Amino acid sequence: MSPFKGLSAFPVTPADPDGRVDVDALRGLVARLVEAKVDSIGLLGSTGTYVYLSRAERRRAVEAAVAEARGRVPLLVGAGALRTDDAVALARDAAEAGADALLLAPVSYTPLTDEEVFVHFQAVAAATDRPLCVYNNPGTTHFTFGDDLIARLSQVDRVAAVKNPAPPQPEAAGAVAALRARVADGFSLGHSGDWRAPETLLVGGEAWYSVAAGLWPRTCLEIARAAQAGEAERTRALTARLEPLWALFRQYGGLRVVHFAAARLGLHRAEPPRPILPPPPEAQARIVEVMDELGLA
Amino acid sequence: MSPFKGLSAFPVTPADPDGRVDVDALRGLVARLVEAKVDSIGLLGSTGTYVYLSRAERRRAVEAAVAEARGRVPLLVGAGALRTDDAVALARDAAEAGADALLLAPVSYTPLTDEEVFVHFQAVAAATDRPLCVYNNPGTTHFTFGDDLIARLSQVDRVAAVKNPAPPQPEAAGAVAALRARVADGFSLGHSGDWRAPETLLVGGEAWYSVAAGLWPRTCLEIARAAQAGEAERTRALTARLEPLWALFRQYGGLRVVHFAAARLGLHRAEPPRPILPPPPEAQARIVEVMDELGLA
Repeated sequence: MSPFKGLSAFPVTPADPDGRVDVDALRGLVARLVEAKVDSIGLLGSTGTYVYLSRAERRRAVEAAVAEARGRVPLLVGAGALRTDDAVALARDAAEAGADALLLAPVSYTPLTDEEVFVHFQAVAAATDRPLCVYNNPGTTHFTFGDDLIARLSQVDRVAAVKNPAPPQPEAAGAVAALRARVADGFSLGHSGDWRAPETLLVGGEAWYSVAAGLWPRTCLEIARAAQAGEAERTRALTARLEPLWALFRQYGGLRVVHFAAARLGLHRAEPPRPILPPPPEAQARIVEVMDELGLA
Repeated sequence: MSPFKGLSAFPVTPADPDGRVDVDALRGLVARLVEAKVDSIGLLGSTGTYVYLSRAERRRAVEAAVAEARGRVPLLVGAGALRTDDAVALARDAAEAGADALLLAPVSYTPLTDEEVFVHFQAVAAATDRPLCVYNNPGTTHFTFGDDLIARLSQVDRVAAVKNPAPPQPEAAGAVAALRARVADGFSLGHSGDWRAPETLLVGGEAWYSVAAGLWPRTCLEIARAAQAGEAERTRALTARLEPLWALFRQYGGLRVVHFAAARLGLHRAEPPRPILPPPPEAQARIVEVMDELGLA
């Protein structure tokens, strides 16, 4: 079973103001995902604020999640870092701690060239025996993968998947087909962007990498299973029903919304790492309202 | 004498592949700037790859530069970090090690709101007694300061200056005047972007924060002094003469160009921190050619 198929749920990583991970709360979040039977867990993704955590804390988070999941659900673990040597070390740590697969984002400060990103990914892919997913998230990394570079990376040993931003619905089928024609056989094409990603499962996308599923796995599994069964109308209706939540994600960022919502549900007591602030009061009120309306409370 | 007036020269920070700073080479680069009598030195700026260096190495770099400069030229030191607590610690380290002023960029991964950046800057400004320059560099930080936020920050104790990207020439005078009308008295407006920044000194800008000056201080001082004397035509002619260099900066990034050029001049033996690569071979050949043509070799 590929770790890059179906619904991948990305939980937050509760941590105290000094960046120490609350492993008990994290285990609670992971348990919720295992019980719901998501297809994989995306630990230490952007929603998991990986880049704000020290190497030691990232290792503690992986160990806690591995202990909780006990092999029942594959764990994909973010290994991204600004420096190549740090990303290599983080990938090794994650593999040693029991990660099933790696997520790698081209975290950048100085804008990177395609060649720099290729060499960086080669180095991290060679560092462990785990399959690696290319984490294309221009909104946070400030690097955009073109199909050329993804196709080239798909030829590198262990580079097995990409997580792309989901295109708008009218372009989704064409974009997936165009990239499919260029990548190595068996390379998985998956998408993030919760309000658009379910549609991609209808047109050849193999995975939905989901922020919302990290907190509301059953709600998102219902959509993913409908899409995987080819039920286009039902997929679209279920996705559209959550539009008030997607509107909050777009306005405040999914991370701020789910971080607050998870605390509201009593699953942790943390705030996001500063400088990221909790949502402003008017946003908090609206999040609570939407959770009630949509049966997410 | 304000540390935020005139020509501020930003050297590279030579370091080995593990990120250990070559303090001897760094002292050599600082000595070159002190001898040329630049108005300030911008240590550990974007060109100084600060965000790729550990806290310990950043401290070593500041200590080396302070020991070399011996108070003859003010040292502005970059304190930016993704986490607020890290930026506070780096600011304190820099102040303790003898930095005259701080540079603070809103390094981001999760896109930040204006309020988040404001609170972050308040925390760092309150951490030491040194004046602080707001480092507005959207190309690396992925956060863009509007005039509203700069005006608000100019009211915060010790927030004393801004380094903005220099606007295109036709807009420069208007942009400087518009911001000047909004900021606190005595707040310094300065600019980066070497091919445009000299012009800003002609229209009310007070500082040119320069990548090129970190390696070629005398060449840039000639331009800065012409601009400060109000010699518009001469300023523009001297700036235009360096257009082949500016073209390389725009194509390959100033950091990659000066890092390579400094090594070519025998000033260090380092490469940029991976994943950043040295310029490709054809770029290296062109850099050497341009250095020869412009008398920069």
